[in-house]
Amino acid sequence: MAVKSDIEIAQEATMKHIKEVAKLVDISEDDLEMYGKYKAKISDEAIERVSKNEDGKLILVTAINPTPAGEGKTTISIGLTEALNKLGKKTVAALREPSLGPCFGIKGGAAGGGYAQVVPMEDLNLHFTGDFHAITSANNLLAAMLDNHIHHGNELDIDVNRVVWKRCLDMNDRALRNIVVGLGEKTDGVPRQDHFIITVASEIMAILCLCEDMQDLKRRLDNIIVAYNRAGEPVTAKDLKATGAMAALLKDAIKPNMIQTLENTPVLVHGGPFANIAHGCNSVRATKLALKLADYTVTEAGFGADLGAEKFLDIKCRMAGLKPDAVVIVATVRALKYNGGVAKQDLNEENLEALKKGIVNLDKHIENMHKYGVPVVVTLNSFISDTQAEYEFIKEHCESLGCEFALANVWAKGGEGGIELANKVLETIEKKESNFAPIYSLDLSLEDKINTITKEIYGASHVTFDSKAKKELARLEELGFAKLPICMAKTQYSLSDDASLLGRPENFDVNVREVYVNAGAGFVVVLTGKILTMPGLPKKPAAVGIDFDEENNKITGLF
Amino acid sequence: MAVKSDIEIAQEATMKHIKEVAKLVDISEDDLEMYGKYKAKISDEAIERVSKNEDGKLILVTAINPTPAGEGKTTISIGLTEALNKLGKKTVAALREPSLGPCFGIKGGAAGGGYAQVVPMEDLNLHFTGDFHAITSANNLLAAMLDNHIHHGNELDIDVNRVVWKRCLDMNDRALRNIVVGLGEKTDGVPRQDHFIITVASEIMAILCLCEDMQDLKRRLDNIIVAYNRAGEPVTAKDLKATGAMAALLKDAIKPNMIQTLENTPVLVHGGPFANIAHGCNSVRATKLALKLADYTVTEAGFGADLGAEKFLDIKCRMAGLKPDAVVIVATVRALKYNGGVAKQDLNEENLEALKKGIVNLDKHIENMHKYGVPVVVTLNSFISDTQAEYEFIKEHCESLGCEFALANVWAKGGEGGIELANKVLETIEKKESNFAPIYSLDLSLEDKINTITKEIYGASHVTFDSKAKKELARLEELGFAKLPICMAKTQYSLSDDASLLGRPENFDVNVREVYVNAGAGFVVVLTGKILTMPGLPKKPAAVGIDFDEENNKITGLF
Repeated sequence: MAVKSDIEIAQEATMKHIKEVAKLVDISEDDLEMYGKYKAKISDEAIERVSKNEDGKLILVTAINPTPAGEGKTTISIGLTEALNKLGKKTVAALREPSLGPCFGIKGGAAGGGYAQVVPMEDLNLHFTGDFHAITSANNLLAAMLDNHIHHGNELDIDVNRVVWKRCLDMNDRALRNIVVGLGEKTDGVPRQDHFIITVASEIMAILCLCEDMQDLKRRLDNIIVAYNRAGEPVTAKDLKATGAMAALLKDAIKPNMIQTLENTPVLVHGGPFANIAHGCNSVRATKLALKLADYTVTEAGFGADLGAEKFLDIKCRMAGLKPDAVVIVATVRALKYNGGVAKQDLNEENLEALKKGIVNLDKHIENMHKYGVPVVVTLNSFISDTQAEYEFIKEHCESLGCEFALANVWAKGGEGGIELANKVLETIEKKESNFAPIYSLDLSLEDKINTITKEIYGASHVTFDSKAKKELARLEELGFAKLPICMAKTQYSLSDDASLLGRPENFDVNVREVYVNAGAGFVVVLTGKILTMPGLPKKPAAVGIDFDEENNKITGLF
Repeated sequence: MAVKSDIEIAQEATMKHIKEVAKLVDISEDDLEMYGKYKAKISDEAIERVSKNEDGKLILVTAINPTPAGEGKTTISIGLTEALNKLGKKTVAALREPSLGPCFGIKGGAAGGGYAQVVPMEDLNLHFTGDFHAITSANNLLAAMLDNHIHHGNELDIDVNRVVWKRCLDMNDRALRNIVVGLGEKTDGVPRQDHFIITVASEIMAILCLCEDMQDLKRRLDNIIVAYNRAGEPVTAKDLKATGAMAALLKDAIKPNMIQTLENTPVLVHGGPFANIAHGCNSVRATKLALKLADYTVTEAGFGADLGAEKFLDIKCRMAGLKPDAVVIVATVRALKYNGGVAKQDLNEENLEALKKGIVNLDKHIENMHKYGVPVVVTLNSFISDTQAEYEFIKEHCESLGCEFALANVWAKGGEGGIELANKVLETIEKKESNFAPIYSLDLSLEDKINTITKEIYGASHVTFDSKAKKELARLEELGFAKLPICMAKTQYSLSDDASLLGRPENFDVNVREVYVNAGAGFVVVLTGKILTMPGLPKKPAAVGIDFDEENNKITGLF
């Protein structure tokens, strides 16, 4: 029998009306702002009402350094949520919304996989409840007001060579990476070099995901630095009087969205900032709401634990006052072998030697999570090509490190396939105390914060700084941004800043190429390589395989 | 007492749950895809089910040549709908969705005015149900796939100097009018000149508004010409294999939206193509649905009757097989005086001489509508500065032309203020037969169609063609587009192509500057002057006055 595709499985699901799903966590129909029958936003009134509830336990799902295909953090998060619910534990997942770019590009959608998906997967992967479009609009309104200000006399004396705000689209479109705007006649604006970024890379996305409420959102929008004037001082969104209109555009986007797993348990899906130049986590508001609604909240962070978990812990948890009770590190036999040097085409073969060589990558991530004082459970997202010998090796290895281990087969079996993992997680939370603390103090200098992350988490020997980056760090401290946390942008394929260094690299340096501040989001972005903020489409984009079948009233070819 | 602003009136409204509103036209809760409590899309199943109903009567609301402020067609349409419902006639309005551009620019929103509004006005004016964002995404996916095709070897041999597809944003942003994309390194695409247009000017907007169903939508998307190859042959969206993914993006946008008037009667608001380079009417699907749901459907077309009604009748009605039963021409005392040569700052003064001079503009529009065989009712959208003497003069003038006349005071009084108009419309439909026929046959040559419109409707003596336009007309006929209708783009301020010629100009020529085909929408666009398809923001954009008041949980300053 042919293996069913994700969209086929999703379309065969029997969804419940979202008002029935919401009832499971005591959210009434009146608390929902419905988007069709299967999606809803949670009203401010409901959020206010449940704010008195006690917080449940918080579980972060992260991963080892991945292969280019990803290791299935979302799939595990969903399966674990389903499994915990199966065990009678009220559990809600708090996940990220997907971007249209990968959907039409190479990677496809992001709604989990197999029998561990959230549905309706088509809606989630396409426009969902319009949050990303609202962010795109707010982002581009600010850009239009900025260029309009320059055009109409430039009272703020904006230096057109130091405009840092970029337009955005939720699309992979390399032709927009480097452009010149404002050409044509005098009435067509002032020419300058510009760039589009993908919407998930917009600072507004990060702001939406870090803000506590509308007041905090507006404060953060006010602080966005859009350019520098000719005296070198920041010009902000507040200076352009753009905040109010942006906030109006974001009035619904700030509200968390609820959908359901294939097993009809509630999931909050809200926000989705880039995991490189931003912090890669779903919204603080959704995570906090989940903690109030359920006894257990499962959330995830983008890329491997060196990037995603580090930023989840040092940025999101610190800013929002969250305290994770356990971390689940997702590995795959394939990714461990990949980290052990096996070529992509050979990953389906049993290879215990490579596994032994690659498992040092997992070791380092376990060590890192322990540095934050959080108990760890390791899980293997099982693949059909895995062998029993490989499983046993990994299990024993983890146990020898004093770390819980569980095999997860949620892709094939849904919640049932995550029972073992769920039990290990419950056991860990019950037995092991979390003593979470960030890895660095905000009182360190910006440079020392970067040093701490790269040495403690990545395992680097030294950090080198391009002179431009060094200068900018000094300037940012002068401008008053010394106390901000660091948002590292680095390759996700290695613990180092070199994608080819797999396993657990040692004796390497990390080079900081560029730094800048996201004053609204509230972090300093540190680039350790060239980061593409506007992806391109491949020669044959996924889009060419997508269709709407009007006979059967369904989307086909989305994956 | 201070006059309340539109948003204040709208926010004081007691809205009914949209499922209650829908019940008035026998649409059940199950037929609705709700977007919160006060907006909904109508399901395909409901549309299918009511398709057996008999059609109601169709009333077009159009206007004389307007002042820059507009004469209140939407306000009259809403007030008339409310008044007809007050008289016990089941009536639904079918209107256009507003664009974010004007909202943040000069003009403000478009939800009617005063006590003749549709609500929630903030939602309608901002993202509404995401239709425009879906169109933006589909438009820009096609653009990205086009540039991606060129980047990856250009198998279709696209001539980069003859790319006609443009990216779009639902934003006034003059800096994007003339740009160069694809700069940077080799991996950043192929450099070429490009342009952004505002989303309402996208051909996809026109397609969405003219299509009958998903099959027709896909057929039209297939036909979009995105570029010409180096042999001069059209390259289409179908050639790029982009249709399926675009259709998937538009699967919800194709469904008509229902909201309510301040008096809780149902209104369909769906689509909103530019009234210059496109046809300026709400969707065929919404209009047809309204005809099935109600005994009377009130719809409108953009700009004055020379542009909006002409295209409504010659493009939309012809393509969709619609037959209007009556036309309401909206005039204001102010606009008639303006057409009589009164300066903007003096329009509040009584001036019977100017009125007599300007009323020839109304006369021409009445004559024009009669040429289409449709009975006419003239209405005055009353303003506080109007005088009794002015009213009486206009009333007598209309009656002397054998044309019904009614004063409408719906801005101040809602439906109650439209009773006189509603009675005149009912009387007209009852007593006068509509013998609707388009003004030109599709069998005429493209040039003769243009001749017919400009001479019959505008009153021009001759049409002149720039040589480039002349050549292009011949080429379009060669390419097989001879049988398409014409979509004229002209200033809305004059019956001529010169905005300064007010009243009823005579002995003037119309010059055709440029022509091109919208093969998907199914019309040939004829430009008679420079048409801005990407507006700019004014020095002080409306956006700076908009805010979200988090204390009271409401938007302020939107107008």
